[in-house]
Amino acid sequence: MTNLENTIDRIQELIDSGAEQQLRDELNTYHSADLADIFQQLKPEERLKCITEIDEEKAADVIEYLPPQLQVEILGDIDTTLASRLISKLPHDEAADVLGDMEEDESQAYLDKLPQKFSSEVRELLTYNEDTAGGIMTPLVMTVYDNMTVKEALETIRIKAEKENMELYYVYVVDKHNHLVGVVSLRTLITTPMHLNISDIMSKDIVKIHVDDYQGHIADIFMKYQFNALPVVDLYNHLKGIVTWDDVQDIVEEETTDEILTSSGIVTDLGDEDDDILTGSLAHSIKARTPWLFITLIGEFIAVTITSKYDKTFSALPVIAAFMPLLAGLGGNIGTQSITLMVRGMSTGQITLSSGWHHIMRETITGLSIGFIFGMLVTLVTWGWQHNIELGLIVGIAMSLNMTIATMIGTCTPLVLKKMKIDPAVASGPVIATTIDVIGLAVYLTLVTWYLINL
Amino acid sequence: MTNLENTIDRIQELIDSGAEQQLRDELNTYHSADLADIFQQLKPEERLKCITEIDEEKAADVIEYLPPQLQVEILGDIDTTLASRLISKLPHDEAADVLGDMEEDESQAYLDKLPQKFSSEVRELLTYNEDTAGGIMTPLVMTVYDNMTVKEALETIRIKAEKENMELYYVYVVDKHNHLVGVVSLRTLITTPMHLNISDIMSKDIVKIHVDDYQGHIADIFMKYQFNALPVVDLYNHLKGIVTWDDVQDIVEEETTDEILTSSGIVTDLGDEDDDILTGSLAHSIKARTPWLFITLIGEFIAVTITSKYDKTFSALPVIAAFMPLLAGLGGNIGTQSITLMVRGMSTGQITLSSGWHHIMRETITGLSIGFIFGMLVTLVTWGWQHNIELGLIVGIAMSLNMTIATMIGTCTPLVLKKMKIDPAVASGPVIATTIDVIGLAVYLTLVTWYLINL
Repeated sequence: MTNLENTIDRIQELIDSGAEQQLRDELNTYHSADLADIFQQLKPEERLKCITEIDEEKAADVIEYLPPQLQVEILGDIDTTLASRLISKLPHDEAADVLGDMEEDESQAYLDKLPQKFSSEVRELLTYNEDTAGGIMTPLVMTVYDNMTVKEALETIRIKAEKENMELYYVYVVDKHNHLVGVVSLRTLITTPMHLNISDIMSKDIVKIHVDDYQGHIADIFMKYQFNALPVVDLYNHLKGIVTWDDVQDIVEEETTDEILTSSGIVTDLGDEDDDILTGSLAHSIKARTPWLFITLIGEFIAVTITSKYDKTFSALPVIAAFMPLLAGLGGNIGTQSITLMVRGMSTGQITLSSGWHHIMRETITGLSIGFIFGMLVTLVTWGWQHNIELGLIVGIAMSLNMTIATMIGTCTPLVLKKMKIDPAVASGPVIATTIDVIGLAVYLTLVTWYLINL
Repeated sequence: MTNLENTIDRIQELIDSGAEQQLRDELNTYHSADLADIFQQLKPEERLKCITEIDEEKAADVIEYLPPQLQVEILGDIDTTLASRLISKLPHDEAADVLGDMEEDESQAYLDKLPQKFSSEVRELLTYNEDTAGGIMTPLVMTVYDNMTVKEALETIRIKAEKENMELYYVYVVDKHNHLVGVVSLRTLITTPMHLNISDIMSKDIVKIHVDDYQGHIADIFMKYQFNALPVVDLYNHLKGIVTWDDVQDIVEEETTDEILTSSGIVTDLGDEDDDILTGSLAHSIKARTPWLFITLIGEFIAVTITSKYDKTFSALPVIAAFMPLLAGLGGNIGTQSITLMVRGMSTGQITLSSGWHHIMRETITGLSIGFIFGMLVTLVTWGWQHNIELGLIVGIAMSLNMTIATMIGTCTPLVLKKMKIDPAVASGPVIATTIDVIGLAVYLTLVTWYLINL
């Protein structure tokens, strides 16, 4: 899809010239995922034109690939009868997501128009919190009974798969009360003699998730066991649905984005509807960015207050002030490196609380080594530039201390937050940068005042 | 797995007391993924004891879940006959990865001991670059011929699936020269009348990847189309293998980690063997962290040089120096927020070059708004504290300008880098922070000198 822009130009020309048949042919050559990309670049009226030109199966498929906001927009713009037909062609979990993103009365209107069975299944999904397994799962699961033979099971699968557009990952085995009792792969089914009983060939060692499990937890389980799909059960072990890896892929991307934004001091969960910082309202974007900036402001005012106490030092030796950005900049950078390594390492599971000491030691030695190298460099450069060996030494020593302390703060803080059960990504970046500023300046100005001014 | 530490204590006790049968029973109660977690916390000799206690199928499975370094370590420590038996039980792509991580002569020794067919298939995999489709794929694919009937195809699948431990995602259709011509799902196969021809029911619209495609590209395709597996072909459209979603999950995690570390100024690709910054040698860790710190050092020395020209200003009004960390700190933070939003938005595809202008406008307005709010706050606080309205105004205006400029630099730089086909994550963080420092200080000191000192 390197020529997305050419494609869009061509489609826009076809729309403008009213060449409907050619437009239809052109649109049909693309995969639904590509059409979703194209639709995002079109104007709203062009999108509507296109969605009515492609056949309904494909239109539903394209809608599945679109971002939530656009799904709701398009369905709201087209004829409601067509919209409800398209919704009924979506997988249950997608349909519930789309309807959940609409206004209450709008989604009710659609639910009333949908086929009875589909509508009641989607209504059940809508009762779950959308960040839990219940809100993510699809309720269509391929199940067979534990007292069937392989032959009966295969026949059941054939009939069910024909009737419902169902993904076939694993076949789940339930008892007559719909309790989940086992799992069997299609591969096992088709390579096992027909007369054997399902209960004899199924695996009873089932990894499962609970309807109320949160999405972060679900993603961790998928990442760890690397399954394609996991069954979802309620408190009584009734099979309620399955969560598939593609649902999880979206969760992982979302969680990673949250982790990255959070650690740069952007609040990702303001609890309002308008929750995408790149596309939401400006007010939302400002609200998401100000809280940690405000805390930085308070922190930096502490730095200002400390620094202002050294006004006599600046009057006596003004070049001292010029080195402040150097110390703060390098301290901040090496500290950020340490935080980033720790936060990421904890989120991938490479760093655990029990290996924490090891990493603290390792980072401290790294900080000392790099601090020593940079301290030497700064001493030499300053000496050569200012022809003042004492100044060079003081700045160099302050640099070494500052970088070492910054590394230690950057390494320990995420571990301490984790130990206190606080998400280490929260506030790591801005707060630590400010702390490093304050401590670094205090160390530097104390050294300078003792050795250069008072002597 | 909340009680991982208790489990490890229990296992260590069983090892120490020599209760082999109990140890075996205990180990058998865990899923292989859990055992892999447990193994990582054990001492090397304890690990060896455990690996010989569990049966070979499970041991191979546990090895699959371990990080590469530990895989090589464990296989190197156990008896070579057992090691080659375990390797031959791994999926082909895993076996190739493990052997590829070993010393040349060691892996040759194992390859010579492995079963003929397995060994030659793994040898072929080893010829591909490990970051390409060829290096990631598994060569075992379920294929049927295009001229078979559904009945013949199902019979072929049954026989092949029984013989080889093969994952069944899709069934690929090839012609007699092994050219990939179509794909058919198991679901379609078992719901279609037996006498139909495969070529009539297969889908010819195949998304496929090339053996030489790089892993980043493969991950993008999987994320976009959300397939379970994709076929890999060579230049002549010969089917060579499949890449499955769990391979891709590892790639995505690795690429995300690289993106995060890179943007905090850590070099992730030093091109040497020892390539994990958390577990590699200290020298490696220092090498990975110094380059961008060094560039920061040069940048900050520019800031020092500029600042040092204002020595008369500092002598005349020393409190001016005290506000420098405040300006640099807030400018750096808001700039980092912008960079992070842009780099992440580009990597998830939410921001494209064509939507770039929109984001620049949006971020500039955000920067202006937040800059205005913080400028006012700083003016008021400074006025109240120093009882000097002019100083308050100058610091406030400098703050507004600095935050706005920082936002614009943070927004534009990643877009410009992308336009120049440079990875926007590279250098974004440290270099931009330094640039913001330099510009921010220059603006502030110029304002101060013009309005406060010269008047």
